Amino acid sequence: MMNHRKITVFTDPPSVLACASAVGGEEANGPLGAEFDFHDPGDKFGADTWEHAEGKLAGVVFSLLMKKADFDHRRVDMLFAGDLQNQCVATSEGLMPYGIPYLGLYGACSTCGEGLLLASLALSVPGGVSYATVITTSHFCAAERQYRTPLEYGSQRSPTAQWTATAGGGFLLGREQTPVAVEAVMPGRIVDSGIRDASNMGAAMAPAAADSLLCYLTQRNERAADYDAIITGDLAKEGSSILYELLEKEGVFIRDRHFDCGKLLYDYGKQDVHAGASGCGCSASVLAAHFMPKIKGGELRRVLFMATGALMSPSSLQQGGNIAGISPVVALTHRP
Amino acid sequence: MMNHRKITVFTDPPSVLACASAVGGEEANGPLGAEFDFHDPGDKFGADTWEHAEGKLAGVVFSLLMKKADFDHRRVDMLFAGDLQNQCVATSEGLMPYGIPYLGLYGACSTCGEGLLLASLALSVPGGVSYATVITTSHFCAAERQYRTPLEYGSQRSPTAQWTATAGGGFLLGREQTPVAVEAVMPGRIVDSGIRDASNMGAAMAPAAADSLLCYLTQRNERAADYDAIITGDLAKEGSSILYELLEKEGVFIRDRHFDCGKLLYDYGKQDVHAGASGCGCSASVLAAHFMPKIKGGELRRVLFMATGALMSPSSLQQGGNIAGISPVVALTHRP
Repeated sequence: MMNHRKITVFTDPPSVLACASAVGGEEANGPLGAEFDFHDPGDKFGADTWEHAEGKLAGVVFSLLMKKADFDHRRVDMLFAGDLQNQCVATSEGLMPYGIPYLGLYGACSTCGEGLLLASLALSVPGGVSYATVITTSHFCAAERQYRTPLEYGSQRSPTAQWTATAGGGFLLGREQTPVAVEAVMPGRIVDSGIRDASNMGAAMAPAAADSLLCYLTQRNERAADYDAIITGDLAKEGSSILYELLEKEGVFIRDRHFDCGKLLYDYGKQDVHAGASGCGCSASVLAAHFMPKIKGGELRRVLFMATGALMSPSSLQQGGNIAGISPVVALTHRP
Repeated sequence: MMNHRKITVFTDPPSVLACASAVGGEEANGPLGAEFDFHDPGDKFGADTWEHAEGKLAGVVFSLLMKKADFDHRRVDMLFAGDLQNQCVATSEGLMPYGIPYLGLYGACSTCGEGLLLASLALSVPGGVSYATVITTSHFCAAERQYRTPLEYGSQRSPTAQWTATAGGGFLLGREQTPVAVEAVMPGRIVDSGIRDASNMGAAMAPAAADSLLCYLTQRNERAADYDAIITGDLAKEGSSILYELLEKEGVFIRDRHFDCGKLLYDYGKQDVHAGASGCGCSASVLAAHFMPKIKGGELRRVLFMATGALMSPSSLQQGGNIAGISPVVALTHRP
């Protein structure tokens, strides 16, 4: 399972200066509802199609981020962003008006982790840029139409299916020292475990998360217990239990410190979301709204954030292709 | 038109160690045909669908790159890659077997420039990675099916339409000094000029290229004449003439040193490609096969490589969305 992977440990760690989040109605009704900065109960964010609504959501997250940081958007040197729509078009539509130098990413639901990783690298180049933002979004209705069936069809969902979050998260990173530092980053590998069921993405992503965590801990000569929290993106119920199984075979136990954003976002008892949440915006909004304040406040001192992505497309599914997983690692530290 | 954009000028410039390219039959029959490392006259690269063929093409480019560099793929620390298929699935399918830490990009046809930019940043972080590869591909038949109509429909093409190249290019970058250095990089902004015609992408991308070039030259206090070549990605005939017009209004003249990969790839007189070539693989293969040897040999000493991308999706087109353009800048220098 192990493979060569170089971990970049920053000699002068970049910082998270501010975070912002915005969600739809279902997410606002979930257990974390009160922690998000903004929600639209109708999920439309002022747009006339679900696809455009996601673009508007990206814009809302970005403008909230600038407001919370009291930061002029013209000072942002690089914008790392992406979403789940074909060709990441929600991102380019929604963030274009700000005119920020843009680097489009596609890491499926792991895009938030990929963005934090790349922003941290960009901010660590001698003589390089000073401020970078990371914005990722997803929208339930746009994702269902694109990957599965339009909502109007009223398709039955399988028990392992996940609910793409209508959510977005944003981060402003810089070189000055704040209470949240990016200690180290490691990109994920593409891991194919032979899954072909778009309604079981947890199973497709869990092996990638296991692969990354084992590789990271081994190479840094650390144990899971060295971290206060190991946060995965959106494995949800199904994927989280597969992750435990894979790790425990290798003697790594994380159940007492593992959190999965896909499990936290909804109330399984009251909300009909099957295995749990997924989507680019799931891990981004939960990290921004729920975990970042705890790292900032020192309640969590060392955290591994492992967003998880399922790499597939509507046409690859139609042609019977496998769904591969990927999971980049971002180590976040409380700076006293 | 101008906007804040920080140029990263490397104090210790990373290098291009090797390049590779592979193309389809139409490209092999063009004026640069003999310069590419590999071609498949049937465009299938051993696969059973056009979509899978593009994945195989990515794999061919990567393995050629490793072979030409005499480099073990397990030593590659980061792979920056992308393509035009929904969710960049050709890239993830085709490059997965190598197990390389992967960062998926979506910059439309500008992805090669975005990849070179990010790889150069990653290689400039103190204590960071040592080797990175950039691979981008496109496939005519897969792109037509996805963005326009399946080939079997025999649709009429408009005169401004471009021909998505069946092509891929790859680059191995590292920290050691070679004759080709990456001097500086600047990301592009998303520029919307109101174009809605997917058969006129040159017009959508030219304003972004003009915006980036004017911004780059002004901020570095340089003139076009300071460069031996200004290479755009795939503006083709239509886009190149719009670029000249936009630049000349601002007093910048580049006609005597401008090359467009989309104009170079095919023979307008003999090949029925309308405005010229486009696609992620167009600028990547032409840079790898045609320009890099000239920079390496010193025939070109200072070059601006400006890949160009049109940001849109099949559904954004159906919903009447505009096609925005983007153009990151990569300055390449011959190291004596």
